[in-house]
Amino acid sequence: MSLPRIAIDHPPWLDAAADWELRLPAGEARMRWVIGLVREQVRQGTGGPFAAAVFEADSGRLVGVGLNRVVPLNNCCLHAEVLAIMTAQARLGRYSLGLEGMPAHELVTSCDPCAMCVGAAFWSGVKRVVAGADRDDAMALGFDEGPVFPETFAYLAERGVEVERGVCRAESAAVLREYVERGGEIYNG
Amino acid sequence: MSLPRIAIDHPPWLDAAADWELRLPAGEARMRWVIGLVREQVRQGTGGPFAAAVFEADSGRLVGVGLNRVVPLNNCCLHAEVLAIMTAQARLGRYSLGLEGMPAHELVTSCDPCAMCVGAAFWSGVKRVVAGADRDDAMALGFDEGPVFPETFAYLAERGVEVERGVCRAESAAVLREYVERGGEIYNG
Repeated sequence: MSLPRIAIDHPPWLDAAADWELRLPAGEARMRWVIGLVREQVRQGTGGPFAAAVFEADSGRLVGVGLNRVVPLNNCCLHAEVLAIMTAQARLGRYSLGLEGMPAHELVTSCDPCAMCVGAAFWSGVKRVVAGADRDDAMALGFDEGPVFPETFAYLAERGVEVERGVCRAESAAVLREYVERGGEIYNG
Repeated sequence: MSLPRIAIDHPPWLDAAADWELRLPAGEARMRWVIGLVREQVRQGTGGPFAAAVFEADSGRLVGVGLNRVVPLNNCCLHAEVLAIMTAQARLGRYSLGLEGMPAHELVTSCDPCAMCVGAAFWSGVKRVVAGADRDDAMALGFDEGPVFPETFAYLAERGVEVERGVCRAESAAVLREYVERGGEIYNG
């Protein structure tokens, strides 16, 4: 069997867009920074209209970042949240961000996580997920976000993972619409 | 920002274990082949006790294969199903296995898919998911499979993705237990 190379990379412009010394206060500042990445992604045409980042919850230090790369890399698993988690874990060399002795981490995502990304966030070890645009905003454009229910978030909460939704929702939803206006591809299974 | 390299690879022994000319009849034959991969993984110590493969549903042709690589690669997203889907999509150069003109594909996984992998299967474009060991078998060992409910599978069914569970369950669950007996790591978020 000749196993194919699975390419996982970020858009080249991301390398210049931020730095690991970045520290942002909790709340809207982190979300606005993430939405700025989506805006750049939409303008550069480097993938779907979603971005995410992992921060240390208290210090606000940037730990990981990811942009949706489904269409450019022909890989349905490369959602922004997955890439942000993979990047954070690659930098720290750990398979979880919630291991003993580690500071609490949060995942900030420009849109409600789809079914896959809720699961990825749960495995990732973050203690908090902060989402921007609503699931309904993505569904309205034709992205099917999959089986996520109120009890999904309750399951996470029972295990110590909080989810806060609707942070800068209108701002993030506006960028989703800009993607469609520019002719961005709506991909689904 | 210096973005880290995200390594995604299969265990070296997998290259010799199967070939893309393989064709297997539907049902238990495909599952037994997948369970054989888990057994080898457990003996070689190359990752968690889970394997998955993508087949063309009718012809039985092998299209993708994946093994759990969470602990060796420090990446919580590298479940067997995710790697099988990524491998299939990389080989075909498509972000979905369900695009117009493509034959129906099925994902055969040695254990009920966790919350992340249900979502990944949904995005992947497969028309069918066949699972071996039960979610309860994995949970009994300490793996927290995340928020998957009866309505999760109903959601998939409504959108044309069937899920068949419990195929060769006892055989697959036995390999899960062998992993624990050999001191395999139980990872969680």
